[in-house]
Amino acid sequence: MKNLKYLAFCISRNYCSQSIRQKQEIANALISHESFVKFQNSVPEIVNTILIKRAHLSLLGVEDHIKKIADYGLYNGNKLSSSLLLYTYKKLETGKSMTEQSLYLAHVLAWAVEMFHCLFNILDDMQDKTNAQVKNVHLLSNAKAGANDMCLIISSIYEMLNVHFSGKTFFSKIVNLFNTAFLYKATGQHFDLTTSKAMSGNTTLFTMEQYDNFVYLSNTYCSLHLPIYLGMTLADKVNEMYCEDVQDICTDIGKLLQMQDDYQNCFEENDMIYKRGTDIEKGKCTWLAVTALQRCTRPQRIVFKSCYGSAEPAHMERIKLLYKQLKLPQLYKEQQKATSKRIVERMGMLSKNNKGETLPPELFEHFLKPNNVEL
Amino acid sequence: MKNLKYLAFCISRNYCSQSIRQKQEIANALISHESFVKFQNSVPEIVNTILIKRAHLSLLGVEDHIKKIADYGLYNGNKLSSSLLLYTYKKLETGKSMTEQSLYLAHVLAWAVEMFHCLFNILDDMQDKTNAQVKNVHLLSNAKAGANDMCLIISSIYEMLNVHFSGKTFFSKIVNLFNTAFLYKATGQHFDLTTSKAMSGNTTLFTMEQYDNFVYLSNTYCSLHLPIYLGMTLADKVNEMYCEDVQDICTDIGKLLQMQDDYQNCFEENDMIYKRGTDIEKGKCTWLAVTALQRCTRPQRIVFKSCYGSAEPAHMERIKLLYKQLKLPQLYKEQQKATSKRIVERMGMLSKNNKGETLPPELFEHFLKPNNVEL
Repeated sequence: MKNLKYLAFCISRNYCSQSIRQKQEIANALISHESFVKFQNSVPEIVNTILIKRAHLSLLGVEDHIKKIADYGLYNGNKLSSSLLLYTYKKLETGKSMTEQSLYLAHVLAWAVEMFHCLFNILDDMQDKTNAQVKNVHLLSNAKAGANDMCLIISSIYEMLNVHFSGKTFFSKIVNLFNTAFLYKATGQHFDLTTSKAMSGNTTLFTMEQYDNFVYLSNTYCSLHLPIYLGMTLADKVNEMYCEDVQDICTDIGKLLQMQDDYQNCFEENDMIYKRGTDIEKGKCTWLAVTALQRCTRPQRIVFKSCYGSAEPAHMERIKLLYKQLKLPQLYKEQQKATSKRIVERMGMLSKNNKGETLPPELFEHFLKPNNVEL
Repeated sequence: MKNLKYLAFCISRNYCSQSIRQKQEIANALISHESFVKFQNSVPEIVNTILIKRAHLSLLGVEDHIKKIADYGLYNGNKLSSSLLLYTYKKLETGKSMTEQSLYLAHVLAWAVEMFHCLFNILDDMQDKTNAQVKNVHLLSNAKAGANDMCLIISSIYEMLNVHFSGKTFFSKIVNLFNTAFLYKATGQHFDLTTSKAMSGNTTLFTMEQYDNFVYLSNTYCSLHLPIYLGMTLADKVNEMYCEDVQDICTDIGKLLQMQDDYQNCFEENDMIYKRGTDIEKGKCTWLAVTALQRCTRPQRIVFKSCYGSAEPAHMERIKLLYKQLKLPQLYKEQQKATSKRIVERMGMLSKNNKGETLPPELFEHFLKPNNVEL
């Protein structure tokens, strides 16, 4: 199933961003290669569950297409969410309760989170011209087909939840977790689309509050909270205090990762293929842009407004220079360190359940390693 | 809320297709104008339920956008599904059980089915250049925004189901009904997209079995089964025999409506604004195309293959001539009559429940009136 063409495509994706590679490394640290391969190998059967139940699908030729989408979703992306889910589940599920069947259910959920991200990768690919030569090669012949693929993915996810969980007591909880993720991610994307388009001088929405909110909805909830909560739910370990721990710590980890993405997009040009940051020319609401607006003088604000969101190389360089003048690289490093320290401190206050157990700290530790934080 | 701009837009939509107008008439016959207005008036409150629960949404400016989408969904489309749902519920709900609260829940579901159709209207608008001057005026500035709006709509629907039904025994049933609709509609659209694109001589998928399947998945289930089953579920009147009645009769009604759409798209040019059938030039899998391929001689097949799917006026005229040579207009009328008669006969065999009640025949009768069938 994983042919050479796919492999080439995956490699290009993996190399197209420094931060994607870091997330991949975190994913690799969370679960063993063997476990991940076991998960990947279970996917064809998982996908077949939908197809077998719906005889109509094979008739209209959609069967092969759904398999292709599942492949695409599984071999692209950074696998962080699925690894985090499997890790959480395995750590929290007490020895005897973990059976082949329960692990299979964890694989179903892990597949569902990967497909969730696949959906928004397709959305990103829909207008992102940067990597046009590598993206869209498999699925998107046009916008309507891409949008329809998104519907197919969403319904495949809910179908899968129905097939495997509709009889369980926590069914509505799981549906709600996924739906929250869809709602939040789509809201984040809406903000991203409207602010980057409307950037002709209007920076009123570029506040730290809006930025934090955007990061939480668009990334933190979907990449961190969702998989951890799903793992906790499946292991029947959802309690208020655990949830508070996850909420607090992951919100900071999410900020850490997004700041990193933003910073690397602007400053860390590398010689990997296909990589070029486009946040400045697209006028994105990034940590750099928001912080710059917080710190700049009136004349600097005029420079920012006239250059930000322009694809003119001189304008882009001017923005980078402004960021340097405002000492954002230093500030970035300080804030990364401060946030990491706050996370470590918060990890020292993990709640104990009635058996005296806490959430496994490794759940969060791996996110700090790329920042070289002393643990 | 319903301002003049919207009104103009609705009128143009209503006039853009003969068959949409017919469906509108059926909808009007099903429930009174007063009841429909009551439903429409409840929508702002329904939409607020999502927004109030999710404080995050107002921050990122998505609140107004969701309201705008809800408006768009509510004042466009043919309203057939929501009317059918409300009609079914009101007919089946026994007097005392219908309260303001239960009617409100029916409105929630009716809103959800309208939004479901709105979603696929947006998908249609995404590439349909025909009515570009009237479509997309409110929402779609580009494909990515349109696709993201689709995600927002889907998650708003599931959010609404969660808010109002997650505590009810029939929650997973309702989720499953909607999910089936999403899966079927997206599958139908996939077939439509792949067959119409791939029509350069390849007509292997243009069989009556595929066509019937396409009609069922893409239209019948979503426009007829979904709203009726939802109404039955809410009224707690789901039983196997009733479902068989709905299944059998609606499948035929769905065929009747789709054949009508296909026929009118080709033959009934009218002087209404914005109307021009594009099935031939897009190479769609229609009843006419499938039937032509069943009946044509080898030389006629060559003509079909070389002209179908071309926007060349001479080619389009040649296809119309071929249809006439094959006597498809007569056959259409005969089949419409035969299908209508079959429906009437099947309606004579409606199952009785243990109280001796049947489904209300009016549920189906209204669909036969535009065909002037003697009941």
